[in-house]
Amino acid sequence: MTETQIPLTQDELTAFERWWRAANYLSIGQIYLLANPLLREPLALDHTKPRLLGHWGTTPGLNFLWLHLNRIIRHSGQDVLFIAGPGHGAPGVVASTWLEGTYSEVFPEVTRDEAGMGRLFKQFSFPGGIPSHAAATTPGSIHEGGELGYSLSHAYGAAFDNPDLVVACVIGDGEAETGPLATSWHSNKFLDAARDGAVLPILHLNGYKIANPTVLARIPHAELEALLRGYGHEPIFVEGDDPTLMHQAMAVAMDRAFAMIRDIQTQARGGHQPTVRPVWPMIVMRSPKGWTCPKTVDGLRTEGYWRAHQVPVSDLAEGDHLAILEKWMRSYRPEELFDEQGRPHADILALAPEGTKRMSASPHANGGLLRRPLRLPDYTQHAIAVTEPGKTCAESTRNLGNWLRDVMIANRDQANFRVLSPDENNSNRLNAVLDATNRAWEAERFPYDDHLAPDGRVMEILSEHTCQGWLEGYLLTGRHGFFSCYEAFTHIVDSMVNQHAKWLKTSREVPWRQPISSLNYLLTSHVWRQDHNGFSHQDPGFLDHIATKKGEVARIYLPPDANTLLCVADHCLRTRDTINVIVAGKQPELQWLDMDAAITHVTKGLGLWEWASNDKGNEPDAVIACAGDVPTLEALAATKLIREYLPDMKLRFVNVVDLMTLQTPEQHPHGVPDETFDALFTRDKPVIFAFHGYPALVHRLIYKRVNAANFHVHGYQEEGTTTTPFDMTVLNKLDRFHLVLNIVRRIPSLASKVAYAEEAVRDKLVAHRRYVDSHGQDMPEIRNWTWA
Amino acid sequence: MTETQIPLTQDELTAFERWWRAANYLSIGQIYLLANPLLREPLALDHTKPRLLGHWGTTPGLNFLWLHLNRIIRHSGQDVLFIAGPGHGAPGVVASTWLEGTYSEVFPEVTRDEAGMGRLFKQFSFPGGIPSHAAATTPGSIHEGGELGYSLSHAYGAAFDNPDLVVACVIGDGEAETGPLATSWHSNKFLDAARDGAVLPILHLNGYKIANPTVLARIPHAELEALLRGYGHEPIFVEGDDPTLMHQAMAVAMDRAFAMIRDIQTQARGGHQPTVRPVWPMIVMRSPKGWTCPKTVDGLRTEGYWRAHQVPVSDLAEGDHLAILEKWMRSYRPEELFDEQGRPHADILALAPEGTKRMSASPHANGGLLRRPLRLPDYTQHAIAVTEPGKTCAESTRNLGNWLRDVMIANRDQANFRVLSPDENNSNRLNAVLDATNRAWEAERFPYDDHLAPDGRVMEILSEHTCQGWLEGYLLTGRHGFFSCYEAFTHIVDSMVNQHAKWLKTSREVPWRQPISSLNYLLTSHVWRQDHNGFSHQDPGFLDHIATKKGEVARIYLPPDANTLLCVADHCLRTRDTINVIVAGKQPELQWLDMDAAITHVTKGLGLWEWASNDKGNEPDAVIACAGDVPTLEALAATKLIREYLPDMKLRFVNVVDLMTLQTPEQHPHGVPDETFDALFTRDKPVIFAFHGYPALVHRLIYKRVNAANFHVHGYQEEGTTTTPFDMTVLNKLDRFHLVLNIVRRIPSLASKVAYAEEAVRDKLVAHRRYVDSHGQDMPEIRNWTWA
Repeated sequence: MTETQIPLTQDELTAFERWWRAANYLSIGQIYLLANPLLREPLALDHTKPRLLGHWGTTPGLNFLWLHLNRIIRHSGQDVLFIAGPGHGAPGVVASTWLEGTYSEVFPEVTRDEAGMGRLFKQFSFPGGIPSHAAATTPGSIHEGGELGYSLSHAYGAAFDNPDLVVACVIGDGEAETGPLATSWHSNKFLDAARDGAVLPILHLNGYKIANPTVLARIPHAELEALLRGYGHEPIFVEGDDPTLMHQAMAVAMDRAFAMIRDIQTQARGGHQPTVRPVWPMIVMRSPKGWTCPKTVDGLRTEGYWRAHQVPVSDLAEGDHLAILEKWMRSYRPEELFDEQGRPHADILALAPEGTKRMSASPHANGGLLRRPLRLPDYTQHAIAVTEPGKTCAESTRNLGNWLRDVMIANRDQANFRVLSPDENNSNRLNAVLDATNRAWEAERFPYDDHLAPDGRVMEILSEHTCQGWLEGYLLTGRHGFFSCYEAFTHIVDSMVNQHAKWLKTSREVPWRQPISSLNYLLTSHVWRQDHNGFSHQDPGFLDHIATKKGEVARIYLPPDANTLLCVADHCLRTRDTINVIVAGKQPELQWLDMDAAITHVTKGLGLWEWASNDKGNEPDAVIACAGDVPTLEALAATKLIREYLPDMKLRFVNVVDLMTLQTPEQHPHGVPDETFDALFTRDKPVIFAFHGYPALVHRLIYKRVNAANFHVHGYQEEGTTTTPFDMTVLNKLDRFHLVLNIVRRIPSLASKVAYAEEAVRDKLVAHRRYVDSHGQDMPEIRNWTWA
Repeated sequence: MTETQIPLTQDELTAFERWWRAANYLSIGQIYLLANPLLREPLALDHTKPRLLGHWGTTPGLNFLWLHLNRIIRHSGQDVLFIAGPGHGAPGVVASTWLEGTYSEVFPEVTRDEAGMGRLFKQFSFPGGIPSHAAATTPGSIHEGGELGYSLSHAYGAAFDNPDLVVACVIGDGEAETGPLATSWHSNKFLDAARDGAVLPILHLNGYKIANPTVLARIPHAELEALLRGYGHEPIFVEGDDPTLMHQAMAVAMDRAFAMIRDIQTQARGGHQPTVRPVWPMIVMRSPKGWTCPKTVDGLRTEGYWRAHQVPVSDLAEGDHLAILEKWMRSYRPEELFDEQGRPHADILALAPEGTKRMSASPHANGGLLRRPLRLPDYTQHAIAVTEPGKTCAESTRNLGNWLRDVMIANRDQANFRVLSPDENNSNRLNAVLDATNRAWEAERFPYDDHLAPDGRVMEILSEHTCQGWLEGYLLTGRHGFFSCYEAFTHIVDSMVNQHAKWLKTSREVPWRQPISSLNYLLTSHVWRQDHNGFSHQDPGFLDHIATKKGEVARIYLPPDANTLLCVADHCLRTRDTINVIVAGKQPELQWLDMDAAITHVTKGLGLWEWASNDKGNEPDAVIACAGDVPTLEALAATKLIREYLPDMKLRFVNVVDLMTLQTPEQHPHGVPDETFDALFTRDKPVIFAFHGYPALVHRLIYKRVNAANFHVHGYQEEGTTTTPFDMTVLNKLDRFHLVLNIVRRIPSLASKVAYAEEAVRDKLVAHRRYVDSHGQDMPEIRNWTWA
């Protein structure tokens, strides 16, 4: 080891070892102790928790890294955000934040003394306490360590548009096996060294998962190095188990990594764009799983093995287990680390940065603090002129794209808005956004490339997971975004949405967490218009998935045309702490509402369309309801047929934009009261409901309503194929003819006409089938149909 | 180019170019033509499709590779299965299978002549026809190219336990950006060269996705090579755009790749296990996107650019587009390739292998042909003795593990059963399986490792995606499997399950597809018993997701105890072409049914438990129903409380194992008729239903039943945290006390007792809260509760 490789003086080394011992001791205390936090008495069974639920395995490594990042911060004043990717790292992260004082600042009852230490220990993995992974309750965290795979994409999301920030992202070698993590390494091809901050990935190779070794720890060193270079990184290896040597090696590695980051940024920010993509540093830390815990328990290998993953010594009433635990805890010599009051000694405290430089107190980790509202240009400027309903056509999402372009421009100097899509931005017709910005692209470019630039704000990678992770990281650090995706493939991120919904629900209950911008989805290229992609691309079930989430968090909008879509999108971009799902078609389609009517309709969330109704304020014979653009078209076409053939029938037409209005106010904050619901849908008349998604979703939303049994919902019945737009509705009985037939069947006074209607519909559908099979497109009377 | 690098003679080269031109011509014909398939007349607009929906971009590359794989097959007799990862590759795959004759064998109306060619062209992306990606309708395919990311894990699944098979897996560079694909490269650490077949990954770098370049095509060559070596492969590059040079280079590459595979296998199968993991070959084919299509259209770059992704020239009525298309198609000189009857010339046909050696006719791609039923040992041998209900405890999944161990042993010589889990096999208590086999592990091993061996049949990687992909590939090629997973994290594969369900639905409609084994999930570590993992691990919504699938495909089972679990698992392993989801707890829990009762109960799917009911065949005052192990416990505890405090009340107890029985027979094949349903649940009495998942799921299943409005469902309300088992039920009002209260409230004759009951329950819950907060575990009266 050369002189430059001994960056820590003996005094520093001593202090480092003391901090690390303190953090490790505090971590073990959280896992095990209910009382006697400083071991002033001999350890007794009564002092320990009845259920030992924590995880030690990854913790000493996290504590080690936190300490070394603090050194960099103290020396350089660098803003650093810490992301703990490994699952169950909470004991370590929480211990470090307590040492830094932040924990006591946000949770005043958990004081930085013996009493507070007792509370800190008890609450961990205890009923009503905190979980064993970093979570919304953890100061300094934007990342839940529960479901693995998203640390690195979160890190990049946080770094985008934060030029002064370095996100240190610890990736567990277990997590590294997940698909979302494996592809998120390529995020470095989308980060602009000039405009964005930096991400420092730290691969923590401790070798084991719950009960298995990890893949990356069991491939040859050269292969691992090739892999990481292939990911576009310069890996710096820190490997070993001797703490002294490891402290020096880590200090060297950190110095080198941050120097490389500074060099890359200095060069990129010097005014001349580098011609080759920078090779960013990363650190590989190979250390024993459960480092510093007992080597063996009951004669079985523990430190450096999967048995250290969770609780290295359990069943404390058995054998010498309690003594092993006590010996292990005392090996950190708490009496040297904490004073009489249980406060950490000054030399330990001195290793923490101050104020918001502490990673535990980074405002980026409580993004709502930094969030500036989006500047939203007047969307009514993009109104589609609708002089009468159902006459003119427009592409709703293309029109939305025009407004999103203006949003992009209006917020350019705030640098806080991005549009994301898995290679579908243009396919989803949001092309106009590219008039205001480019696609972010740091990889190789050619002169003939189309709107690629390092500083683009349209983010496209063919990974829904990565788009979602980037966006979450971006929102959690106080910015705004808009994610457009093929409807069927939003299921790819079902589980990520779950975790984000859980984060939002929890953070709403954490008083010091400030609200963040909502997660906004546009689901387009939807089930009814996947003409050429066919069955594999036809699935509206993301709505069912979102509907299982807590009402305070979940929103679903089905704007039937371009003006309602604009109005909904504007609303969604103003909201906070929710998940907003908008479904809208991208194909040219008939327009129904002018902008004034659209605003009124969207504001109510659902409503009667008088121009399509003929009940004139009376109780109707039946209600025809709809939600979604294609169902609205078919419902109106059915209405027109009824008017033509049964002019005496009183039909009411109801359109639903905000799907959650169907629930009761107790179930969802947007739910309408029973009086409103009953006034619209009646208490006893048949309701024929044309729905965008699976029919059962409407049934589950309305089951508490008095008229629930009279709802007859037409929707997607999992009958899909490559076919024409109208044929898709026929296959699923959502088409105008099936709707008419069902109306006729449900009205008792029309009983005599059922047989006739059935025959007429059958004839129509036979003609349809024949035409489509020979022409490959819908009949002209369908294609050219208008309401007007 | 040295002599060894010119493997193709001039004659061979000529024939190769002719095959390739034929396949490309047939591909373009599918995309464009309705008539005039051989261009015997000048091309007219009438000959073309009104909607141009196909994809050309990846097609010529697939045709090229298919041809070169055929060469290897003809020379060596090697069994090869082809997987077309790139989306929308159907024109190519279908063209090749038609050239080989297989297409006409399975679809006799699509003859290998001019008339058949006309049908082949018309059906593609045409209503009622075939989709634009390889699908269940494509002979030779086990892989749908719609949702991207699963080709490589499918390939490995197919190769496992198929020692004589090489799976050639073409991976698109778009697909390569997805998470599931990115991690599935590591599958080579789980493949045993001695026992399993081989996978030959072929990365098809054509540079573009829908509208963007691909990441892997835009990183430096050295970086790409490092990445692939890091994945553990020896990459062989074939790069260029000159067909002649590329044919020679690909022949060299294929020869080398297959020679390497043979060498690795020979060494591994020589009897002495190699000490280092073999480095398997792979091929990188860099060729222009849309290779051989017009260089430009309307002055815009087309070949070798993203504009060639879909239809290189569209809007055929405009400008010179029709002429461009005709010139392009005629550039393949169809008149030289097909005879007067439209049959391919003999020299072209001679390039195809024969019989089942044709990749399009591989029996592995129609796995039901090869499937041998699993040998299922008598599960009743593992019955838990239940002398009276609710007295003894058992760990249901651990007991299941004992039987699965026997299944593993019984099928060892058939080599057709694997158990999969994302590092949770032991956590899910299926440890016993490891007594019969090991975990598959080809990476580095140490002496102290636990049950790792190259030839293990327990597959564990921390990637739900990879586990799912392996299993799908294994099932689709005719074998059996069992996938255990933490309940919450099955959402990670929501979209994969969708695609598999779609495959099953479609393949049931394809007459020549033979049924395959069902996809069996065990969801454990479930929402009610994630004590230490907390909120992030608590989500029962996979059931909601599965319930949206087609009834003929989807099954959900909630066995309440160990004996019912055994019986359900045995049933599931016998089924074909379905997706079976079993939910069962892993913690010690009370047992209710002896084996005879369990078999009777599971056979019916739902039923009245007489020993827990006191309605004695009369109409009860209320029904208490339940589904799931924890809900069953709470429902029985509530029943016991009612018996104690309200002994005159007539309460009927119904347990549901097969959740789909709740639907009507029209909705689901397992649905019970209304008479059965009404006889069990009454037509007008309150039904208090304790449910494992989200309450709304039950409401959506029963909405057609006459008594639907009287169902009051208690289930998970998205209230989770780290807490005790009973406290979880309290937080979600699924506990015995809330159930009792709801029963009292719903029975009119008990109106006078409501206030008293409310107070009593309130007291109970306050005591509970107090105890849990101080002790960290449930009250003894809860922990030690028994029915008996």
